[in-house]
Amino acid sequence: MDRSWVADLAGREGDQVRLCGWVHAVDRSDDGVAATLRDRSGSALLRPPSSPCRHALGPRLASLAPGSAVEALGTVADAGPGTQPQLVLDELHVLGPAMAEVPLRPGASLEQRLDWRFLDLRSPENQLVFRVQTTLERAMRARWASEGFVEIHSPKLKPTPNQSGSELFSLEYFGGRAYLAQSPQFYKQMAMAAGFERVFEIGPVFRANPLPTPWHDTEFTSVDVELSWIGSHEEVMAWEERWLREVVVEVAEDHGVELRRWFGMEVTVPEVPFPRVDIATARGIVEASGYSLAHCPGDLDREGERRLAAHVAAEHGHDLVFVTGYPEEVRPFYHMRCQPGSVATRSFDLLWKGLEVTTGAQREHRYEVLMDQARARGLSLHPLRYYLDFFRFGCPPHGGFGLGLTRVLMVLLGRSTVRDVTFLPRTAQRLHP
Amino acid sequence: MDRSWVADLAGREGDQVRLCGWVHAVDRSDDGVAATLRDRSGSALLRPPSSPCRHALGPRLASLAPGSAVEALGTVADAGPGTQPQLVLDELHVLGPAMAEVPLRPGASLEQRLDWRFLDLRSPENQLVFRVQTTLERAMRARWASEGFVEIHSPKLKPTPNQSGSELFSLEYFGGRAYLAQSPQFYKQMAMAAGFERVFEIGPVFRANPLPTPWHDTEFTSVDVELSWIGSHEEVMAWEERWLREVVVEVAEDHGVELRRWFGMEVTVPEVPFPRVDIATARGIVEASGYSLAHCPGDLDREGERRLAAHVAAEHGHDLVFVTGYPEEVRPFYHMRCQPGSVATRSFDLLWKGLEVTTGAQREHRYEVLMDQARARGLSLHPLRYYLDFFRFGCPPHGGFGLGLTRVLMVLLGRSTVRDVTFLPRTAQRLHP
Repeated sequence: MDRSWVADLAGREGDQVRLCGWVHAVDRSDDGVAATLRDRSGSALLRPPSSPCRHALGPRLASLAPGSAVEALGTVADAGPGTQPQLVLDELHVLGPAMAEVPLRPGASLEQRLDWRFLDLRSPENQLVFRVQTTLERAMRARWASEGFVEIHSPKLKPTPNQSGSELFSLEYFGGRAYLAQSPQFYKQMAMAAGFERVFEIGPVFRANPLPTPWHDTEFTSVDVELSWIGSHEEVMAWEERWLREVVVEVAEDHGVELRRWFGMEVTVPEVPFPRVDIATARGIVEASGYSLAHCPGDLDREGERRLAAHVAAEHGHDLVFVTGYPEEVRPFYHMRCQPGSVATRSFDLLWKGLEVTTGAQREHRYEVLMDQARARGLSLHPLRYYLDFFRFGCPPHGGFGLGLTRVLMVLLGRSTVRDVTFLPRTAQRLHP
Repeated sequence: MDRSWVADLAGREGDQVRLCGWVHAVDRSDDGVAATLRDRSGSALLRPPSSPCRHALGPRLASLAPGSAVEALGTVADAGPGTQPQLVLDELHVLGPAMAEVPLRPGASLEQRLDWRFLDLRSPENQLVFRVQTTLERAMRARWASEGFVEIHSPKLKPTPNQSGSELFSLEYFGGRAYLAQSPQFYKQMAMAAGFERVFEIGPVFRANPLPTPWHDTEFTSVDVELSWIGSHEEVMAWEERWLREVVVEVAEDHGVELRRWFGMEVTVPEVPFPRVDIATARGIVEASGYSLAHCPGDLDREGERRLAAHVAAEHGHDLVFVTGYPEEVRPFYHMRCQPGSVATRSFDLLWKGLEVTTGAQREHRYEVLMDQARARGLSLHPLRYYLDFFRFGCPPHGGFGLGLTRVLMVLLGRSTVRDVTFLPRTAQRLHP
């Protein structure tokens, strides 16, 4: 018999069905025994039959250990309006018995929950988090598909370290050394030089960051986009904001009701265009609020980002803001300058409720200019030679951005750390399970 | 002015348009100069205007270096039926000049091509390979989306080595050791214990294989599926074959014309069900063809797989075959036995034109049985304790498979090595670019 879902039982009174799910609770009252079965769609009450020839089912129901994975065959009973569906059992098969009590209590700490992540993930709230993540990515891909983007899988094993050599994992590779990719930046620019025109990638990146914050893992999922034939970084920002808006619309449509029920939250679909503020103005706003940014010239720190976000929310009623035009000293050497010789770059960050979720830019694609910028930074050109080659054989103007998937999920769902919305987070202190 | 595509110029004679693309060739004949511009959609001829006030455009066209990335504005000319579109130029901007001759010649070896992969990927054939890959994955995801699968991103940094410890990359991790994931097997089973019911992942996996074959890279993209509440591995196979058929249908619909043009090939949509043969019968077929399998008891080697495929093609006219029921000695300890105490497992491989593209199985989810199987294999239970815990708190029956993305692409496109269809392949000898 095909499996039925709990949520589909309404109006099927008298039908024979097969349910599969987990025993949520067993109720042994004076009125008799009943067990709650939960599947992905909802929960139903299992009751023993009144028929004496199946009298063994009552005691078996009563002895079920919560958590057990069971298959239940029976007849849908008329449970009355507004109550949960009921099934009068014909057969009950314990396919995966729970043999021990679940070692997680309500109110367990995040670290305890992560130690027992597979049990922690059983809650409806956590199941919802990962269904929302699935929808996020599906919606992102819908736009890429409709616009002819090419998907790439860039290698995570790299032959050379990044420029700074910081936060880098390295390993022995057949007698030499390999490095784990910190971003697909290099390779998505390679795809532009290869004429792929528009590419995306969703994949893991690695940062050997020894100090965990609520927003930094040592491994996380990066969403990367790169576009050729752009006129400036403004086109990248315009592309990203329309795309993000569509993604949030999809989440609201697919999960709005559940998010209200389980998280008590409303999904806010952001208006486009998002507000834009250049970094000098942003710093001025933060300083005017009474917070000094003297320790991070040309940039914002976390508190600065929060204060800017509060200002934008108050002034524009918007949760998102593009910060633009960072000075070259706080950006990689390959970011294009706003004008020849200017200090400001064609770069942007996107803050969402005060958290940086995206870094993006137009890249410098003119070989001589790029060489000058590398030299001015005091970089050795030899380790960069393969990268520099991209621009010697005809490369269109291009730019793009990277976006942290779990940061977006965290902000969207109002959680306080990315580790709450990461399947199995990794930090300096946590490599398990 | 918005960008136009070459393929959309037909019927637009007299229109002002903007094209972006690469200079493919420059023709300097007695009739005058013309350059071929190629974009993703096709190629067009750029001609200088006859107007004397724009006389500089002719010499500029003539001096273009092939490969240069250019923007061309002009008027669509009537080129006559069956010829390529023509543009009479108003403006020509060299946005990314080619400064050097492309160091790749027709007939370059695969290794030379991979050294200059970004130039190699410019060919229409290679561009097509990655557009087909994009379609493959999109079609895979369409089915997952319609059936409510949850996407997971399992960690690639793991705390423990695999059982055999073979072909394993390891790295220092904040004073301890981490291992690069060889498959998401452990974590997709964890998702089943967490009640995710149906999950998928597309992501990188790592194998420190020192001996490259045409079908083995040290890093490749694995497509993984896991299903709960199955009755047997037969359900997994039935799911996979319908899914693969739909994927091939999508490739044929989206790229059939181009694949005929560039590769001279027809996409064959496989009939379902695929033929099935148990391993004992498969070995008998191979031995009967005059090839001894004495050196690989209970299994097939590459030549065996080829001979079996030839037999299946001759007998059933089919490119695909499921080989089932491998003995436990050649499968991991957690594969479920066909019957209690039997040697045969509920496992399968899928061969496509004689190449293994999938390994799958129903997993043993009964704690006591699993412990017995681990002990019988002589495994130490302590390193397995986190895995074994999955089955102590209620775990449904489940099974799934892993599929090598580039192997499928290679077979589908009739290429001879996965490295031909991998964006940037990695082997013991190749970590660059």
